[in-house]
Amino acid sequence: MADGSEPRVGDQRPGGRAARVRDAVLAATTELLDEGGYDAVTYEELARRAGVHKTTVYRRWPSRAELVADALDLHSEEAIPIPDSGSFVGDLRLLAHAVAANISSEAGARRSTSIVAAAIADADVADTVRRFMSRRIAIAQPIVERAIARGEIGDAADPHIVIESLVGPIWFRLLLTGEPLDPPFLDALADAVASR
Amino acid sequence: MADGSEPRVGDQRPGGRAARVRDAVLAATTELLDEGGYDAVTYEELARRAGVHKTTVYRRWPSRAELVADALDLHSEEAIPIPDSGSFVGDLRLLAHAVAANISSEAGARRSTSIVAAAIADADVADTVRRFMSRRIAIAQPIVERAIARGEIGDAADPHIVIESLVGPIWFRLLLTGEPLDPPFLDALADAVASR
Repeated sequence: MADGSEPRVGDQRPGGRAARVRDAVLAATTELLDEGGYDAVTYEELARRAGVHKTTVYRRWPSRAELVADALDLHSEEAIPIPDSGSFVGDLRLLAHAVAANISSEAGARRSTSIVAAAIADADVADTVRRFMSRRIAIAQPIVERAIARGEIGDAADPHIVIESLVGPIWFRLLLTGEPLDPPFLDALADAVASR
Repeated sequence: MADGSEPRVGDQRPGGRAARVRDAVLAATTELLDEGGYDAVTYEELARRAGVHKTTVYRRWPSRAELVADALDLHSEEAIPIPDSGSFVGDLRLLAHAVAANISSEAGARRSTSIVAAAIADADVADTVRRFMSRRIAIAQPIVERAIARGEIGDAADPHIVIESLVGPIWFRLLLTGEPLDPPFLDALADAVASR
């Protein structure tokens, strides 16, 4: 800060200093996740990169799991926009490609797999990851609701299960089989989900 | 052994002593995975439980990852028989229930998630898990091939992707969302995959 003081995180004016600090801390969190995985996220290094006191970070995010969840929320909003292409299969293809791109790049795989490992090792992290994933699935459900409204699919389709059916096999390849997340697979998967 | 000697693992007569030792070591491996996860699988404890010398285990399985993969193969053959109920949706439902039961019991979840964590931490374990999962997917593919032969689905269906589409969302719930692997979900998933 120019006056040498830190921004107050309690200051909630949109676009104010607190918002800038929040964004800087969360961006630094994603950076660290991408560079070194979950274990690389330390309050010391975060504070250094975001240019704030460590206590500022602790005050706002007493738990690393919550900090990581907020960083993932912000990152996902940008990296995985929910498509609205006008067709069900088009939306599913776009979503499949975005999810795959986000978790299968070298940095994205490091971020994603290290968070899964942390969740397996620690019940608090697992809870946080679960809430994050539930939010992401909920955010994507309008893809299905719009397809139902357009009459492309019947209204018996469960939006939640449809999104899980698209996203689940992508994570399955990343975590279990290591098979490529390439366009032919992603399109075939989206087409199969769309044709139910 | 009654004569105080150990069976020779090279002795490949079916049902012979080597086969009994092999089965005993692999059963002990699964036991340890269920009790304490991947890290609990030590050659010392395995040898003790199987009643053989540690060197016998080392000679046959120089790598713990290969040992675990063999144990998983044997366990999966028994725990997840590939159904042949006469209908595509029936087979998919049975397979979904068997997979879910195998990985979501307390012991099964400990075994499954600890292996995923080990694979994330170690590239050799990851390779072994990948080969194991590929074998399991290949073993299940006749479910799809028989449905094509019966005319229940078109021959454009990719058996590999169909099985991934069923199994992927089950693992996704186990590892990412923690949502229940209950009969309504498993049946809805199987029905959706069958109706493509």
